[in-house]
Amino acid sequence: MREVAILGVGQTAVAEHWDKSLKALAGEAIFEAMRDAGIDRGDALYIGNMLSGTINRQENSGTLIADWVGLRGIEAMRIEAACGSGAAALRAGVSAVASGAMDTVIAVGVEKMTDATRDELTASLATAADADYEAAMGLSFVAINALLMQRYMHAFGWQHNDFAPFSINAHANARHNPFARLRDSISEKDYRRARMIADPINLLDASPTGDGAAAIVITPVETARKRGNGRPVVTIAASAAATDSIALHDRHDPMTLAAAKISAERAYAQAGVGPADIDVFELHDAFSIMAALSLEAAGFAERGQGPRLGLEGQIGPNGKVPIATMGGLKARGHPVGATGMYQIVEVYRQLIGDAGETQAPDAKIGMAQNIGGSGASLITHILRVN
Amino acid sequence: MREVAILGVGQTAVAEHWDKSLKALAGEAIFEAMRDAGIDRGDALYIGNMLSGTINRQENSGTLIADWVGLRGIEAMRIEAACGSGAAALRAGVSAVASGAMDTVIAVGVEKMTDATRDELTASLATAADADYEAAMGLSFVAINALLMQRYMHAFGWQHNDFAPFSINAHANARHNPFARLRDSISEKDYRRARMIADPINLLDASPTGDGAAAIVITPVETARKRGNGRPVVTIAASAAATDSIALHDRHDPMTLAAAKISAERAYAQAGVGPADIDVFELHDAFSIMAALSLEAAGFAERGQGPRLGLEGQIGPNGKVPIATMGGLKARGHPVGATGMYQIVEVYRQLIGDAGETQAPDAKIGMAQNIGGSGASLITHILRVN
Repeated sequence: MREVAILGVGQTAVAEHWDKSLKALAGEAIFEAMRDAGIDRGDALYIGNMLSGTINRQENSGTLIADWVGLRGIEAMRIEAACGSGAAALRAGVSAVASGAMDTVIAVGVEKMTDATRDELTASLATAADADYEAAMGLSFVAINALLMQRYMHAFGWQHNDFAPFSINAHANARHNPFARLRDSISEKDYRRARMIADPINLLDASPTGDGAAAIVITPVETARKRGNGRPVVTIAASAAATDSIALHDRHDPMTLAAAKISAERAYAQAGVGPADIDVFELHDAFSIMAALSLEAAGFAERGQGPRLGLEGQIGPNGKVPIATMGGLKARGHPVGATGMYQIVEVYRQLIGDAGETQAPDAKIGMAQNIGGSGASLITHILRVN
Repeated sequence: MREVAILGVGQTAVAEHWDKSLKALAGEAIFEAMRDAGIDRGDALYIGNMLSGTINRQENSGTLIADWVGLRGIEAMRIEAACGSGAAALRAGVSAVASGAMDTVIAVGVEKMTDATRDELTASLATAADADYEAAMGLSFVAINALLMQRYMHAFGWQHNDFAPFSINAHANARHNPFARLRDSISEKDYRRARMIADPINLLDASPTGDGAAAIVITPVETARKRGNGRPVVTIAASAAATDSIALHDRHDPMTLAAAKISAERAYAQAGVGPADIDVFELHDAFSIMAALSLEAAGFAERGQGPRLGLEGQIGPNGKVPIATMGGLKARGHPVGATGMYQIVEVYRQLIGDAGETQAPDAKIGMAQNIGGSGASLITHILRVN
């Protein structure tokens, strides 16, 4: 198996891009990543996207985008794992390069969500839940997460306000990220007073959706070393996926993100590291409860103790476990099928020392964990600077 | 790169499975393939599916199906390339096994189309076309193929009746396939008198949709050799994808399936063979015009001469280029995202000598070519018996 490295990255701002289509958004990120990588061709283009069929009425979007960016003829396909689609597309690319079949793969995560009305969007996002047993009963995604958070607070004795640090940290970091959707700081008072959405989840527990695209060019590590564009070489030290039941009620223990745990453990084994070695962790904070559960599943906190890291001030860029360093889903925004790719771009920027105001000091090993559904489809990547 | 072999296969009949859901259908094929392969676990499950989001309102279907078949925890994701999704999912599996990252991958193609009304289905299938420039103008998939066929007949001087052998051969072969959707023979008179759908495409030029699933278990060739279940070992000698513009009007030459040509050439190069070495060719005869164009693109006929092979009696199981040996899309049926996997199962059965009445004599090398869109997303596999 060949070792795989990142040759270049690109991203658009997460925003309401009323004037840009699905393919135009993807194109912007791809062109930027290709320019950054210094390439004008590739062997394959893998698209991470969740909603192009339901919202944009466009399947076959891998091929559409390949042609749009001038790569007609190239292998292209779309990888879908709900909100985990972004990292899943990168994972497909890693396999192809590691196998020796491909030398240069472009992976892009893209989502164009403003083509839908709010109701259409809520219904489309619910397709990540169990269609027969959750969505059909009217459970939206925020409702599913509200059930989880309610139960978690009850089981472990936390108050709503104990989750405030997750959102405050994310917003504070996003201030410095020009690609972020929400760039205003929030205070604990803001958090406490935010409008209730689905008790106990209020507006500042929930990540905003948005339009956006992020792209990554990968090659064998030797190619990245030879290219030597003056930047440190960042390898993909681990790429691991795992699954759980889609429906919450089918979980053996809803208070543990079992798939997150399995995929993190697989990734740690592949990279030969443990939680203590991770210098930056881009987790999937679609809701603040997910930040807590992710920290626990990946081994940074004991069961039921995720919020403690925030309360102890350990999740900022200078903390023990820097998370959401460029805003996370909460403030950078959550263009669902693109999110996983944004996470990798952000970890990459941390590892090459390009994270500006929110740079985690001396970051050498970073992890990104992307979740599809409420903990159903998990993909974990570990990146290492060489 | 490790050589990859097929360890087992499974399929459901293509039919109107009113009593079976998406996951139940996929499960049937997966259980059968696992039983056939003699395994009870795997490292990953890749799902080829086009319409689960738009018709079944279920994204994240890879994970849903993994859990349904008792493989919770396993890596799972969905691969989508419109009607090319089936072969695309196998292709993702081939990369994963070839890379060394995975030892056993289950790939399943599944489509549950009867959950939609006829109008919903037509609109959903049109998402494989260009949403902005084709579907939005009201072009359905049959209309797109009618434009192609009209132009082809004009350019090369063929009459509608010259395409009859494609449909007659497909139906004749499907008679012997218990998994086929349409198992009645048709005559030239039937073909000539069939109801017009979109001039010049009549009912017997078009493949029927349907519900269905087909699954394949792949491993490194050494594993397949060791298992030795008494059957010859069949390797995947080539797996190659390519793309063209999605929209017909954007093609440099609409009379050539450029992506089919490129992916076939890539596959021939990988396997070290040429068209003359192919003993059986499962092509993507969604419409009879596609059979003609596919034969030309893959190098079996000169430009504009595809129908000649049929008229000369060379496409039957004993002909020079046996196609649609178990009915093809035309008569086995076209459960869109599953079709590519059915094709591989059928080539496999030919190569192990399990094709019964429609066995191509002494078949050693077989090819399957799966198309997403009207020639937009192409995946070609070459299988070889060792």
